[in-house]
Amino acid sequence: MQSKRLGRQTVRLTRPPSVVSFAAIGSRQEAKGPLAAYFDELSPDSFFGAKTWEQGESAMQSMALQRAMQKGGLKPADLDYMLAGDLLNQCIGTSFGLRDFRIPFWGLYGACSTMGESIAIASLLIDGGFARLAGAMTSSHYCTAERQYRMPVPYGSQRAPTAQWTATAAGCCILGAQGDGPYVTHITCGRIVDMGITDAANMGAAMAPAACDTLSAHFRETGRKPADYDLILTGDLGALGREILLDLLGRDGIDLRGNHNDCGLMLYDLQKQDMHAGGSGCGCCAAVLNGYVLRQMRQKKLQRVLFAPTGALLSPTSTFQGESIPSICHAISFSVEKEGAN
Amino acid sequence: MQSKRLGRQTVRLTRPPSVVSFAAIGSRQEAKGPLAAYFDELSPDSFFGAKTWEQGESAMQSMALQRAMQKGGLKPADLDYMLAGDLLNQCIGTSFGLRDFRIPFWGLYGACSTMGESIAIASLLIDGGFARLAGAMTSSHYCTAERQYRMPVPYGSQRAPTAQWTATAAGCCILGAQGDGPYVTHITCGRIVDMGITDAANMGAAMAPAACDTLSAHFRETGRKPADYDLILTGDLGALGREILLDLLGRDGIDLRGNHNDCGLMLYDLQKQDMHAGGSGCGCCAAVLNGYVLRQMRQKKLQRVLFAPTGALLSPTSTFQGESIPSICHAISFSVEKEGAN
Repeated sequence: MQSKRLGRQTVRLTRPPSVVSFAAIGSRQEAKGPLAAYFDELSPDSFFGAKTWEQGESAMQSMALQRAMQKGGLKPADLDYMLAGDLLNQCIGTSFGLRDFRIPFWGLYGACSTMGESIAIASLLIDGGFARLAGAMTSSHYCTAERQYRMPVPYGSQRAPTAQWTATAAGCCILGAQGDGPYVTHITCGRIVDMGITDAANMGAAMAPAACDTLSAHFRETGRKPADYDLILTGDLGALGREILLDLLGRDGIDLRGNHNDCGLMLYDLQKQDMHAGGSGCGCCAAVLNGYVLRQMRQKKLQRVLFAPTGALLSPTSTFQGESIPSICHAISFSVEKEGAN
Repeated sequence: MQSKRLGRQTVRLTRPPSVVSFAAIGSRQEAKGPLAAYFDELSPDSFFGAKTWEQGESAMQSMALQRAMQKGGLKPADLDYMLAGDLLNQCIGTSFGLRDFRIPFWGLYGACSTMGESIAIASLLIDGGFARLAGAMTSSHYCTAERQYRMPVPYGSQRAPTAQWTATAAGCCILGAQGDGPYVTHITCGRIVDMGITDAANMGAAMAPAACDTLSAHFRETGRKPADYDLILTGDLGALGREILLDLLGRDGIDLRGNHNDCGLMLYDLQKQDMHAGGSGCGCCAAVLNGYVLRQMRQKKLQRVLFAPTGALLSPTSTFQGESIPSICHAISFSVEKEGAN
């Protein structure tokens, strides 16, 4: 057992689970962004055929799971577990989205770190021998998030320059005990970090210290360096949060500048699409991972990727009550090589 | 690996994790109930020293974890993971309650099934060799739940006869690879079940079919009968939901009447305390388990318990939009004997 735990936060998977299938679904803004070609489906209808945006978000999750199963030649009965969650109160995007599949389900709440958390726990359950195939999924929707966290979209609120744009997107990743990769080789579980930021329109600043904490732990506990990865991918710090992260890690002697990117800076063309500090929401990094990144790894254009999505664990209520913003970041190491024996 | 999976939903733990320590915290109504003597602390102040009820709920979770660690002679650095969640939007009871402990954290959302979900995943991570010690925790608070799901308490809304009373309580269970029991021997993961109930003031009716689905799967996949348990404990179906469950299981040929109880019927004196259909909320079954049940097991007064908390995966938004109530139930088999080799 000791050999699996490399330190306080990181475990090495001794039988690295493989990505078996994956899918990304988006909508109109995602269709205008630079990663549009990597989506499995881009719906021009932000209701996804449903009557409300919340029901549309559930429909989007259903589509992501269905598409991922279809691409993998799988049916619901093949999946031993689903691990999923979203940003909506009580995670209704997930519970209604998964309702008809009848797959044993563990519900998660990790805010925008959910894509990492769900892949992490799915991988641990597979490596532990409790599942052969498990799905990890999340979503976000611009209109449901605006209505819940800020103001209904038709109200036309002005956005702060530090604000990010919640992606209307869902991503699903199916992992298995067997497969040709990419493989999940290491998992660094985050701790809650709260440096006292209270501005809910500046999530990047709130979340960067959590990303720093987890990435520091990952490099320290694995003995790896940033250069060991082709891409270190946070999500979604945005333009401002990324600078803070690079600065904080630099003080720890870790230089990420060479191979870091942030999903919030990749999904949209920030200038042309007027996205302020960048994309955000569970669906942003879910779509970047399950659209662009895993395809690049399948084609061996990326060999090793450290995926480190961050979540801000606030609510409108905590903000109204003057609280600061606790955040968390989980890091997942993907490799095209099965590195379990190392 | 095959030997761990007994069927679609149930796994048998080959190295059954042990309960190492546990604690239950309550407040005024819990102090008036029949299980008062089993709590570790009963606060006469429903704010738990904080300024708001939400902050009080976080304080209550902190107290539960602190008390469980203290009783086990543990400190935060001893815990490899915390698994926790609550009913508040974005689970702020948990994220603020755990903020200062610096323990690697996986956030869950399982509504009132969270005590079961958190113990299940903690047990799987320990049995899988990824953790030596892991904490499972949840809470609910009458005043935060009323404000969020129905009306602020000072409004004085009249309650439906089928309504349940959200417990102001938190429970924490620390599990470990080593220990003298009780042991977690089997886990049956629930699936989302929605039989079309739309009345959010009748949660018992909405959740009973999910409890039936999971309990049926448990008995079918383990080959056990209800009589193999001293106590089969659902949470929290209340008076009406319990009758529906017994009826539904009876149609499957499973007679639970001899040894079933529901946490919602145990925590309060329903008549004297005017609790309508019974207690509810994540904290209800968390307190019954981590107060009464685990103490009884430590004293060998109960040998085998099947703990099956149910969660209603709705939100006020889904109800406003006319949706029915998807529910889930996870079942955890506890035994004073380490039954792993069977």
